[in-house]
Amino acid sequence: MSPDELRRFAYEAADWIAEYLSTLDERPVFPETRPGALRDALPARAPEQGEDMDTILRDFRERIVPGINHWNHPAFFGYFAISASGPGILGEMLAAALNVNAMVWRSSPAATELEDVTTAWLRDLLGLPEPFEGVINDTASSSTLYALAAAREVAYPEQRSRGLFGLPTGRVYASEQAHSSVEKAVLTLGFGREGYRAIPTDGAFRMDVGTLRRAMVEDAAAGVRPVAVVATLGTTSAAALDPVREIGAVAREHGAWLHVDAAYGGPVAILPEMRPRFVGWEEADSVVVNPHKWLFTPIDCSVLFCRRPEALARAFSIVPEYLSSVEQSEARSLMDYGVSLGRRFRSLKLWFVLRYFGREGIVARLREHMHLARELADAVEAEEGWELAAPQELGLVTFRFAPAGVGAEERDDLNRFVMDRVNASGTAFLTHTELDGRVALRLSIGNLRTEARHVERTWSLLKSEADAARAGIASALDEA
Amino acid sequence: MSPDELRRFAYEAADWIAEYLSTLDERPVFPETRPGALRDALPARAPEQGEDMDTILRDFRERIVPGINHWNHPAFFGYFAISASGPGILGEMLAAALNVNAMVWRSSPAATELEDVTTAWLRDLLGLPEPFEGVINDTASSSTLYALAAAREVAYPEQRSRGLFGLPTGRVYASEQAHSSVEKAVLTLGFGREGYRAIPTDGAFRMDVGTLRRAMVEDAAAGVRPVAVVATLGTTSAAALDPVREIGAVAREHGAWLHVDAAYGGPVAILPEMRPRFVGWEEADSVVVNPHKWLFTPIDCSVLFCRRPEALARAFSIVPEYLSSVEQSEARSLMDYGVSLGRRFRSLKLWFVLRYFGREGIVARLREHMHLARELADAVEAEEGWELAAPQELGLVTFRFAPAGVGAEERDDLNRFVMDRVNASGTAFLTHTELDGRVALRLSIGNLRTEARHVERTWSLLKSEADAARAGIASALDEA
Repeated sequence: MSPDELRRFAYEAADWIAEYLSTLDERPVFPETRPGALRDALPARAPEQGEDMDTILRDFRERIVPGINHWNHPAFFGYFAISASGPGILGEMLAAALNVNAMVWRSSPAATELEDVTTAWLRDLLGLPEPFEGVINDTASSSTLYALAAAREVAYPEQRSRGLFGLPTGRVYASEQAHSSVEKAVLTLGFGREGYRAIPTDGAFRMDVGTLRRAMVEDAAAGVRPVAVVATLGTTSAAALDPVREIGAVAREHGAWLHVDAAYGGPVAILPEMRPRFVGWEEADSVVVNPHKWLFTPIDCSVLFCRRPEALARAFSIVPEYLSSVEQSEARSLMDYGVSLGRRFRSLKLWFVLRYFGREGIVARLREHMHLARELADAVEAEEGWELAAPQELGLVTFRFAPAGVGAEERDDLNRFVMDRVNASGTAFLTHTELDGRVALRLSIGNLRTEARHVERTWSLLKSEADAARAGIASALDEA
Repeated sequence: MSPDELRRFAYEAADWIAEYLSTLDERPVFPETRPGALRDALPARAPEQGEDMDTILRDFRERIVPGINHWNHPAFFGYFAISASGPGILGEMLAAALNVNAMVWRSSPAATELEDVTTAWLRDLLGLPEPFEGVINDTASSSTLYALAAAREVAYPEQRSRGLFGLPTGRVYASEQAHSSVEKAVLTLGFGREGYRAIPTDGAFRMDVGTLRRAMVEDAAAGVRPVAVVATLGTTSAAALDPVREIGAVAREHGAWLHVDAAYGGPVAILPEMRPRFVGWEEADSVVVNPHKWLFTPIDCSVLFCRRPEALARAFSIVPEYLSSVEQSEARSLMDYGVSLGRRFRSLKLWFVLRYFGREGIVARLREHMHLARELADAVEAEEGWELAAPQELGLVTFRFAPAGVGAEERDDLNRFVMDRVNASGTAFLTHTELDGRVALRLSIGNLRTEARHVERTWSLLKSEADAARAGIASALDEA
């Protein structure tokens, strides 16, 4: 494809993107499709001869887009709602064209140093102190794996040569509400399920520090090595913020690494009024914050801040001759801090986003999201037959339809049914979770394009679907 | 940023990309910069107020681009030369705008199914049989880690619950020429350095199968569990192809998992005349092939094919309630096959690339790259004072300046010096390696824009720099 042709098609793609983003409101958030529909509609084999780009782009619009769950839709409230901002999209476009691989400084000086710069900017915005050094990974799952690998390096210096075989068992602690990626990391590192201990939470789904302390004392007495404690600032199910200062104190008593999973919640530390909720994270050994979650950056962009980057490098630095260079003593080699050798130029989009919005712009938008979430929570609390399933935190509302006289099992079914109806309507998209063993709906506000009307319309729809479902049950009972 | 503004800036970015790609030849491949130059030139903090996008894009052009090592330059011959083709860039642009996260089918039906489709297309192009299922990861380092985690799952069923503690030691085997990511994966999985055994190679830098067999027998007698054998098709230093069929036979004798690292070499299996070199890989348990290396796809796109996806899922599947969905029994959940939960829509660019080029287009370009490499190798062999450091394979030439009467140490310095001079000239970019303990230069041809003239010009420059260096040494000796 010649540069001129590429320009023409990129214009076409730009036109499509602009049209897409300005018509999101008219599209169903979740598509009308079923498993296998797209797969069955596409040829079983790659074409023999090349096809022209016009055809390919037409197929993109006509075949792919109708199968998209629109994460960029203002009424996408599932999982953690995110957004690809304009500057972020532009950053990805330019990064793809440059196609550099920031393994070491020599393989890409600008990408290496812009990662230094943008992660230092973010650290400063978040109020984390200088000893923290940032690297950008694909996801928080990887960031947490790398952090816990560094923790293992510290807890088991001898495993570097002989592995975990024959060594005393070790454990990582996190709350029952911690993200599944923590357990996945523990399994990947060879600790097994018994190497992970989930600590119960209090009534607000925050880790119970007294239980953590007792668990660690008990394990220490049994000869189990304390490897790491993971505190979460913004849990997936309830956006709860663990008491990180108290957790850190317990971790330090046992010489365990403190990792903070602030993948979702981290960005709100930029708000001065929220900073007190984060006190203690500045003493952590590592912290993960995902700009691709609540900082308007297209996926993927997960920043792992580490106060002991030398432990990360001990876990991961292997420099074969073909990757050695004269600059390796003068500049960071980003490949030294994780599994992935190849690294896209992810800092470019983050640089664009941080500059385009500025600190004030970010603060205003995060406040607005939290305000919308608070308003919905107030409405839920005021509505008969509905309840919050957890205290409202950050941009998340976790709630359920809980009409009087309906048993717990049936209530679960009702909530799933109502969610499915709302999702099938195309008006909004929500996901669910379980809290205290019971189904709860999650409505997460984190998209730049979300306005009060999107939340209000969704809340109205939830109520009317719930009423209809209840009426249906009542009439079914009457008939029976 | 309004959709209209985004369109305007995307046009501007498209104009820049077109101009960039059409003027690459005039740019120095490696920039005139030093460690810290960019970092020192940028502000220490993020801006307080948002900045306008015109300013940001100007800074991109004026500050970032001058620090770029141009991987898309036709005379970029370092590491493994790659290219971001036009369709690939368009794919990334659209994927960034959609910003979907393909964790499970429900979170993105189209992205999940297009990953099914494109990896099936690629499997078919490569001649791998149907039992292989593909997933797209960021890098081969991750793909290999995931494959070896599945191997560990099979070799140590008991570790799932209690970890590796107290279990007999285990080992992964690969050749001394295997990529550093294999050892990194072994360390990450908790096997330690002793869990990795590097097998010597033959004169052509292929794994010596006799030595492998003896090593595995010896280890088995000592009670070491055989976990996996990694065969490489296209090693980093010499592009050597390990005898994968013979290696597979040995692995099977010991019940070890066979993983094939064809991250670089894999795509040439699309060429019928090359297929015989791959015989045996179709019996592997897992194979990694990177379209972002030699298949014109922008980084990152690494396909892990696995014949036993259920073992991968045993290693990685954890389904918390907030990720459960009714479709999980009908469609693959891509999160089940690796560490990263979040997954970009990487199949979109791969779909664009495979369709735009078609099988014939891919074949023609790979043949041309191999032809250019063969021609350079012939020229090196014909040139007095120069030698191939390894048999020429695939798109790589590994060679050195080896004038008569120059000692080995001095020869190493000479080669490094010549490479640094060529790189400093901006005309071309090469990297080096070590083979048989001695420095060798690597010239890798894999960029769509590379023509014979780029290789010829680089070869001329290498010779003239070498002659000048030798003359300098001679005159220095005369003076002494």
